Amino acid sequence: MKNNIVKMAQEAKKASRILAHLSSQKKEEVLLLMAHLIKENGEKIREENERDLKEAKEKKLSPALIDRLTLSNSRISKISISLREIAQMEDPIGKIEKMGRRPNGLLIGKMTVPLGVIGIIYEARPNVTADAAALCLKSGNSVILRGGSEALNSNIALTDLLQEALYQSDLPQASIQLIRTTDHQTVMEMLKLNEYIDVIIPRGGEGLIRTVTENSTIPVIKHYQGVCHIYVDSNANLRMAEEICFNAKVQRPGVCNAMETLLVNEKIAGEFLPLMIKRFTEAGVEIRGDEMSQRIVPEITLASEEDWYTEYLDLILSLKVVRGIEEAIEHINHYGSGHSDAIVTESYSQAGKFLNEVDSAAVYVNASTRFTDGGEFGLGAEIGISTQKLHARGPMGAAELTSRKFIIFGQGQTRK
Amino acid sequence: MKNNIVKMAQEAKKASRILAHLSSQKKEEVLLLMAHLIKENGEKIREENERDLKEAKEKKLSPALIDRLTLSNSRISKISISLREIAQMEDPIGKIEKMGRRPNGLLIGKMTVPLGVIGIIYEARPNVTADAAALCLKSGNSVILRGGSEALNSNIALTDLLQEALYQSDLPQASIQLIRTTDHQTVMEMLKLNEYIDVIIPRGGEGLIRTVTENSTIPVIKHYQGVCHIYVDSNANLRMAEEICFNAKVQRPGVCNAMETLLVNEKIAGEFLPLMIKRFTEAGVEIRGDEMSQRIVPEITLASEEDWYTEYLDLILSLKVVRGIEEAIEHINHYGSGHSDAIVTESYSQAGKFLNEVDSAAVYVNASTRFTDGGEFGLGAEIGISTQKLHARGPMGAAELTSRKFIIFGQGQTRK
Repeated sequence: MKNNIVKMAQEAKKASRILAHLSSQKKEEVLLLMAHLIKENGEKIREENERDLKEAKEKKLSPALIDRLTLSNSRISKISISLREIAQMEDPIGKIEKMGRRPNGLLIGKMTVPLGVIGIIYEARPNVTADAAALCLKSGNSVILRGGSEALNSNIALTDLLQEALYQSDLPQASIQLIRTTDHQTVMEMLKLNEYIDVIIPRGGEGLIRTVTENSTIPVIKHYQGVCHIYVDSNANLRMAEEICFNAKVQRPGVCNAMETLLVNEKIAGEFLPLMIKRFTEAGVEIRGDEMSQRIVPEITLASEEDWYTEYLDLILSLKVVRGIEEAIEHINHYGSGHSDAIVTESYSQAGKFLNEVDSAAVYVNASTRFTDGGEFGLGAEIGISTQKLHARGPMGAAELTSRKFIIFGQGQTRK
Repeated sequence: MKNNIVKMAQEAKKASRILAHLSSQKKEEVLLLMAHLIKENGEKIREENERDLKEAKEKKLSPALIDRLTLSNSRISKISISLREIAQMEDPIGKIEKMGRRPNGLLIGKMTVPLGVIGIIYEARPNVTADAAALCLKSGNSVILRGGSEALNSNIALTDLLQEALYQSDLPQASIQLIRTTDHQTVMEMLKLNEYIDVIIPRGGEGLIRTVTENSTIPVIKHYQGVCHIYVDSNANLRMAEEICFNAKVQRPGVCNAMETLLVNEKIAGEFLPLMIKRFTEAGVEIRGDEMSQRIVPEITLASEEDWYTEYLDLILSLKVVRGIEEAIEHINHYGSGHSDAIVTESYSQAGKFLNEVDSAAVYVNASTRFTDGGEFGLGAEIGISTQKLHARGPMGAAELTSRKFIIFGQGQTRK
């Protein structure tokens, strides 16, 4: 089926005008119906997912990717539960803040409103299709989804059910649309439709982010990689440091908030590293270190300049011994991706310095970077994790898919 | 003097790391010193401004533009007063919000931080140079300014004084830089420097905004034109409507929050329009109306399709008689620029409908659109008025030049 992306975007804009004024109750009902339809049609979703999996296996895609692509019964059930949770969240639209009376009697405040039409470009996991669509609907936005080509059949099955719920609720099906082809050209066309689309959210690696940034005339909220660091300070509780570092690297290495680079203060490197590296090695982690760390643990291989920039998403770790917190902060601000970075220290002043000077979306003292997540941060579901500074930074929930407008109540005021 | 814009941007980035951690007191001192130096060097600024004015007159630029370009003694004094006011405003950096404890004991909050490096592209008024630079400094950002070519000598004189204040305060002069040439190429190069510059703020007309949007790989906050509307409802107090409409069109027609299009409900058009148009005509306002309004007041000329999109910035007004609020809202959302729009009505439900459904940065009930302004809204000075939805919408003060980062305090928490 050919996409007419211009027509899709126009229809999405029209739909957005309706979604913007839906009652909280209506939005809740539609989302609950979506949860219900997904639960009831698990078998159909599984069938379509099987087609994607068959192709993926024929193409010999990596086991990690195939795992992410798979929709088991329990994962389908989780999608349904997630929709139900989003249904029951607080409505982020129509909230009024900073309302106050000016000296001339004007009553001025800011009201949350939807952004309008949101375009999301994402990768293999099909559950993103339902989560993203639901968060957009909750925040009164219409959405155009462009999922990974590997998940096309699964995404079509899910979108058909979401659109069925819209239809049964007398809402425009253009509220949630999926680009049902996998060609590059449609995406490139979409990026120029700033007349109809209000924001583009690309979730993915450097190539995708660069293509979108360079070609989009629509404002972009980047969801880029996580090159996350932990700095173990000279004043660290080394037992705590060991647990935090092990958790951040090993508990789930394939996600964006896992640690990729460990920075260790030279004063405690001799004591800390041998045990830490032993534990990593036993867990199957490959270490790529600088010369200083190699002097302490000779068997580790030497890191290249490129390694410091790399998001491995795997059991590989870059390791550097630093002279102090200044060098650690400089390294993080230079090589990091502004995602999540942590210090382990018992020093009050070093903790404060790190929190202030590390320029990342989430900066931690004495905790694993693995907590950067909408759920863990208390936002409910998340549409992703923004790595840019404009508009929203860090985990983004439904509230981050809103804008604000000033509303002004007068009694005939004119300007002098 | 040739610009090396890459070097300027690199230096600005370095400077931004220092500005980000300046104490509130230090920022206040520097801004007061700037105010002092500008006041003391009025004669020098006037001399350089005279050079700009001489060229402008030779080029036969419009009297309105020459007026905007002129720095009289009282305007220079106003620049100094504005710097003093910004100095004494509350520091927008380091504010912590939504701090709370999660079930696992993590203490999570959001802290305001500077955006980093801001590029501002603006037009003739030289006072913007000082205001924008001061607001960026207040919010811990470094700034690269690109003013209009007509004001180059004035802008250089002002920037030299601001940089002198930085120098005397032991701060990097790259905190505030001016592009000291007027070529197009330097701006085009700047728009690609997303490695160093965090946001671009273009203030100007359609051509500038389109060029920036299409060429920038840096996130953009658009400051586009104001095609502002007033809708006079069938339930309006017509005396109040007359005062508001007259104020919004005539009090200062050359600014972005002035009314450009008047929409009048057909039920009261016959009563309202003859008197209103008489008053406008006496004030020298040219009226371009639709056929319905021409039937009521035959002497007015017919508006073209283009007129409905036009920001006249002059004593010209588009006029349309509409069947009701639906048609008014549709017209505004279609032809407007999302700046400032007002309804005049005594109807509670019509007021609510207009506030909800008009998709603009500032939506008014029973007041002149002329109030859309950082000062009038209580933000202190403003860097401009954003007409986009992402990040900041409407008047932007120092607080809108910030981002937020999550700060997380743990006691050794790891993810299960």
